[in-house]
Amino acid sequence: MTRILALCCVLLLALPDLAAGNETATPLLTTKQRFSMPVYTTVGGRTIKSLQVGWESYGELNQSKDNVILITHYFSANSHAAGKYHPDDTAPGYWDALIGPGKAIDTNKYFVISVDSLANLSANDPNVITTGPASINPDTGKPYGLDFPVVTIKDFVNVQKAVLESLGISKLHAVVGASMGSMQALEWAASYPDWVPRMISVIGAGQSDAWTTAALEQWAIPIRLDKHWQDGNYYESEAPIDGLAASLMLITQQALHPAFFNQQGEALNYHPLESGPLSDIRQSHSIVKWLSERAHSRAALMDANHLLYLVRACQLFLAGHGDDLNASMKAVKAKSLFLPAENDLLLMPYMAQAAHDALLNNNKESVYDEIKGNFGHLDGVLNIQQKAADIEAFLQN
Amino acid sequence: MTRILALCCVLLLALPDLAAGNETATPLLTTKQRFSMPVYTTVGGRTIKSLQVGWESYGELNQSKDNVILITHYFSANSHAAGKYHPDDTAPGYWDALIGPGKAIDTNKYFVISVDSLANLSANDPNVITTGPASINPDTGKPYGLDFPVVTIKDFVNVQKAVLESLGISKLHAVVGASMGSMQALEWAASYPDWVPRMISVIGAGQSDAWTTAALEQWAIPIRLDKHWQDGNYYESEAPIDGLAASLMLITQQALHPAFFNQQGEALNYHPLESGPLSDIRQSHSIVKWLSERAHSRAALMDANHLLYLVRACQLFLAGHGDDLNASMKAVKAKSLFLPAENDLLLMPYMAQAAHDALLNNNKESVYDEIKGNFGHLDGVLNIQQKAADIEAFLQN
Repeated sequence: MTRILALCCVLLLALPDLAAGNETATPLLTTKQRFSMPVYTTVGGRTIKSLQVGWESYGELNQSKDNVILITHYFSANSHAAGKYHPDDTAPGYWDALIGPGKAIDTNKYFVISVDSLANLSANDPNVITTGPASINPDTGKPYGLDFPVVTIKDFVNVQKAVLESLGISKLHAVVGASMGSMQALEWAASYPDWVPRMISVIGAGQSDAWTTAALEQWAIPIRLDKHWQDGNYYESEAPIDGLAASLMLITQQALHPAFFNQQGEALNYHPLESGPLSDIRQSHSIVKWLSERAHSRAALMDANHLLYLVRACQLFLAGHGDDLNASMKAVKAKSLFLPAENDLLLMPYMAQAAHDALLNNNKESVYDEIKGNFGHLDGVLNIQQKAADIEAFLQN
Repeated sequence: MTRILALCCVLLLALPDLAAGNETATPLLTTKQRFSMPVYTTVGGRTIKSLQVGWESYGELNQSKDNVILITHYFSANSHAAGKYHPDDTAPGYWDALIGPGKAIDTNKYFVISVDSLANLSANDPNVITTGPASINPDTGKPYGLDFPVVTIKDFVNVQKAVLESLGISKLHAVVGASMGSMQALEWAASYPDWVPRMISVIGAGQSDAWTTAALEQWAIPIRLDKHWQDGNYYESEAPIDGLAASLMLITQQALHPAFFNQQGEALNYHPLESGPLSDIRQSHSIVKWLSERAHSRAALMDANHLLYLVRACQLFLAGHGDDLNASMKAVKAKSLFLPAENDLLLMPYMAQAAHDALLNNNKESVYDEIKGNFGHLDGVLNIQQKAADIEAFLQN
């Protein structure tokens, strides 16, 4: 239990650093690479000049370039899916339990690659390379702010495709992603079916339904309420850190489950009738302070406008951009594996089930299996080793 | 389905007006009464001068004054639990399906009474009488703002007790409440056991655990972010309506379930790739506009500081104020009935289960039974007639 709590303290301090307990004696080492594109045209028909994104890889690309597994990352993550930049890094990439030599996604066999999203949340992290509203607009010499075009999950996929093509790759062995990464994975399978023979969706969805689009909006609202946000033009003044931290508090809670959260309460000696909040409306309970402090700490490397653009990308998600999910799944050629988390309150299992059912309705090959655990949505990251053998077998098939 | 959607549009527009479909030909009529207290001392040891609250009753108090059922109301409601003020009111009180002549809580037999909470959310509703941060502080002649003392669920109960005692009542037949009302009901049973032979907790809890206290805090945060909030001193300037509406959007979504919410999406022709939000980051999806418009409309009669004080009262909730729930339940003499909603995402059934278990551990009489439905938390209001027979039998026993 202590180990799990410690793991989760790390998690809430810096979501990408999840797999601290899974370090190997000789860690996989990786380096952030930079990919540039002079012009990119978005799905919405707008252009982005001098687009740049970071990427990482683990393992070697073989001569026929057919051993590629693409890892698409979740909302608050980046392409640091596994390994370390330096042997003395405190923690490896978020799915290090899954990716590495001899692991389920075996870097002795596969060339594993991941790409930082557009409008990546951690725009101020020196290990992230992204293009988004915080980037300099070459036409004005100033940050885009809300002049940055709306981007979609399909735009993330199109940029990943350009990165892969720059390496001479024209087909994947598989695409695998968790949460927002699952959206990209299924988008790949539906939009570029000839590229994707295998797709794994972890804690995922096939589209954002009305519930999810509204829930995502709740993440955006605190940022727009922060007086420092100023319609997105805060780059020469104070950033809307309180609004951003409020958003992260909401995201963190929704990504967890009471079963874990209340264990954290016990560790803090939480009591409903704590004397501070009982005596003073301006004071907070221990659990609130804990959540707030971690959110403010994480917010330092993040950009508030980037969060708004990621929210919008997820709201606009319907894999394959068809009329509906059933129509969208027609084009898929991949065999699919859906691994929702049984106690997920953010992307509840019914969402993965709906995508799986739409594939079966279209006579596609698809498997559905739930991850057990008490973390909620985050079981897709923290308990992924539970499905390591299934993932390994699925990739070999 | 159309009737249910219509009912829920009403619900989201004005939560107290829930039972529009359950009107009888000759409606029960009621009048808001006023109760005043020169001085009230809070659980936290502070004093409130000239305390005033509203109350309503349905049915007649018998001579021995032993036919009293107290209805304790939920977060966004007030004492208008049943009936109408005027025959031409558009809707009766929120639990009119349950309370009235010949209904489960039969006003031909019982004197049913309900009291507006302190810091009632609808401070600007002419049908609500409450004392809270928006009230004039007699010592300064100005609204209290954050100088108003923190109040707890037990303070709500203590004020209700004073109202009852002013009517010569010294014992209840039963106390019945939903959600925040369930907190008051169990507080009654634990704090004043000799008053309470029967307690019904609908969509309820026995305490606010760490999860719930943090979730409640998420409701408060948007208000404090609104630049018009000004540390609670907005009574002579613009009210923080956007922050208040943001809070209501979150509360509304958390009180519902995807199963219902997505039906509403269908009614709006929601699509993930709507052209407005795809082309412009400042535009919103249909479902977001729907939620926002209803929240802004409801916010007009509500007070933002009152919401903060209600959040705090709910966070400070441990029925009976014992060391823990098990210790608190020792004093209870009531037989209890817990009716959580199976799909409740706000106060999940595990919370009612924990209170029920704590009572059984203390060898108390308690029954636990779940309300079925697709509304989530709001099944406790919208589907309460499902348990009408059980409630009627429980009250007669």
